[in-house]
Amino acid sequence: MNSELAKLERFLKIRPLYFDEETKEFIWLDTRLLPFEEVYRRTRDYRRVAEAIRSLEIRGAPAIGVSAAFGMALAALESKARSVEELLRELEEAKRVLASTRPTAYNLFWALDRVMGRASRDALSGDPGKVSEGVVDEAMKIYVEDVKTNVEIGRIGSKLIENGSRVLTHCNTGALATAGFGTALGIVRYAWYEGKSVEVITTETRPVLQGARLNVWELKKEGIPFKLIVDSAVAIVMKRGLVDLAIVGADRIVLTGHVANKIGTLQVALAANYAGKPFYVAAPTSTVQRSWDAESIVIEERGKDEVITVMGRAQLTLKDIEVYNPAFDVTPPELISGIVTERGIATKPYSESLPKLLS
Amino acid sequence: MNSELAKLERFLKIRPLYFDEETKEFIWLDTRLLPFEEVYRRTRDYRRVAEAIRSLEIRGAPAIGVSAAFGMALAALESKARSVEELLRELEEAKRVLASTRPTAYNLFWALDRVMGRASRDALSGDPGKVSEGVVDEAMKIYVEDVKTNVEIGRIGSKLIENGSRVLTHCNTGALATAGFGTALGIVRYAWYEGKSVEVITTETRPVLQGARLNVWELKKEGIPFKLIVDSAVAIVMKRGLVDLAIVGADRIVLTGHVANKIGTLQVALAANYAGKPFYVAAPTSTVQRSWDAESIVIEERGKDEVITVMGRAQLTLKDIEVYNPAFDVTPPELISGIVTERGIATKPYSESLPKLLS
Repeated sequence: MNSELAKLERFLKIRPLYFDEETKEFIWLDTRLLPFEEVYRRTRDYRRVAEAIRSLEIRGAPAIGVSAAFGMALAALESKARSVEELLRELEEAKRVLASTRPTAYNLFWALDRVMGRASRDALSGDPGKVSEGVVDEAMKIYVEDVKTNVEIGRIGSKLIENGSRVLTHCNTGALATAGFGTALGIVRYAWYEGKSVEVITTETRPVLQGARLNVWELKKEGIPFKLIVDSAVAIVMKRGLVDLAIVGADRIVLTGHVANKIGTLQVALAANYAGKPFYVAAPTSTVQRSWDAESIVIEERGKDEVITVMGRAQLTLKDIEVYNPAFDVTPPELISGIVTERGIATKPYSESLPKLLS
Repeated sequence: MNSELAKLERFLKIRPLYFDEETKEFIWLDTRLLPFEEVYRRTRDYRRVAEAIRSLEIRGAPAIGVSAAFGMALAALESKARSVEELLRELEEAKRVLASTRPTAYNLFWALDRVMGRASRDALSGDPGKVSEGVVDEAMKIYVEDVKTNVEIGRIGSKLIENGSRVLTHCNTGALATAGFGTALGIVRYAWYEGKSVEVITTETRPVLQGARLNVWELKKEGIPFKLIVDSAVAIVMKRGLVDLAIVGADRIVLTGHVANKIGTLQVALAANYAGKPFYVAAPTSTVQRSWDAESIVIEERGKDEVITVMGRAQLTLKDIEVYNPAFDVTPPELISGIVTERGIATKPYSESLPKLLS
């Protein structure tokens, strides 16, 4: 496994999360403290992983999925179960705790199901040690695959980026949103590595400021030129011709081509369509739910502190007020120019192209 | 004049700015400190008024216009000119200083031209004392007219608000953006005074947070129910049917019906049109420039500190980055359901209805 990872080394300048095979600890960069402090956290307790996901120390659908898989690995490693049945019960409990952290990111449920599937298959051996090893192995596989998938999304998506392109993005979809490298921002990174001249226009992405904090940190690290704008400036920036295309990530995609992503994505899509600019989504196929029901997508509503403060540090307004804080919105397929995955670019009609890509 | 104002008393619960005829001071509420502190500032120096406009202690196109008129009054009062020519030169200099504060708000130039027009007419008397008195009188007229105009906009616009309406608004267009009462928020206020049940959905309005700070302060004072959302949530809130109509203000309107207003207004208009909800603009006719050239509207670009900090109090991200911070955008007429003025509601085609309203 590590030899595969070694081959990806040059794409892993930023390692936002990983498993330390010697100490058996899961380690992650606390994204809440960026760009001011680079603090890595570590744990052997899957409940702490759940807490890190819930509190946004770890965020971004692929990163959440991979972290949840490692959470399962920690649960397996801490288990003292003497039977396969006992171990499976403990793993089911860990899965329940990890699944309850964030409702929208599909990769979370995908990763947990995949790890439990492996455990169920290995359970036939009747050996809890083998089941436990399998869970750790599966988590590592999910991790390495995510990096590979991102690089492949970057390679495929880079074709959309001409030399000199100005790319608008919303929220963070870079290394910090994945096991490494990134999805939408991974495409920009790949194009940059290929020697193309690019400029990123990033929104700040209120309320949690993934653009202002995380994109700024990643882009500075890479030396990729960028401009920061408030979320409200997207339409005028598009209309004034300061952007060639928009690329965003996804938290959940269904087979109709409806895309749930960070609150504000729908407004970026509307602005791009209004200004006649392409609007792309980039995500691994692990973000695609095999469902035809866009209405069933659960939109997480978060607490009001996110809105009335800046990362809990400064108060923006009075405390005793009503706030509506949906964390995601859903962009309909007709506004989307293409969905870039590691298996190719799906185009309209998505209800045909997405199932074909997944088959 | 004061008797006219006395009649408007019940519409002036909040007096954001006024002229103290005894002390000859211009007095204003420093909106930068709201909603945490209510601090009134006072001066006899027009340069200080210019500074208050430039630094956003006073903001909102009608408030800027009225304040600039009072700035001219202060310039006239401080003058020791012994001839009309000398006084006019001093007034021209004051006008130049006040006009250079903010480039987009049309009311600023309208008010300055109106005051200078009065001075030019009174100059025929050859008496600098009479010119000076005329300037003060004209400023007071502009002030009282603005309040009356707002109340009339409220009366006319209230017809758009059914009992139980949920009104989305962007930026502050209440008492704090005018001489008192407000334009778009004045309509909501009028409907509320009429006994209608209303709910306001206000954006926070980054970067200066006029929604989160000023609308919250005004709406709490009135007891009008409201919810605060981030700017990025407008489209989903519209699409989910949580809003019945949107009303915003304007900084400059041209005869084609193009409306320059706070950055993000275009995105609200796009979202409303996408969701099939009416999108109205409310402004006094003093905001309408007699021009057919939407391209000529100057969009103010402000400094990066507004974006990388919260009101200078908390740092959001790294300092040494590039920021693009346009303060306004332009919404085209085809996205606008109607423009509410004190002379009635203009509808499409605006190139016919607006000149008719103004004639």
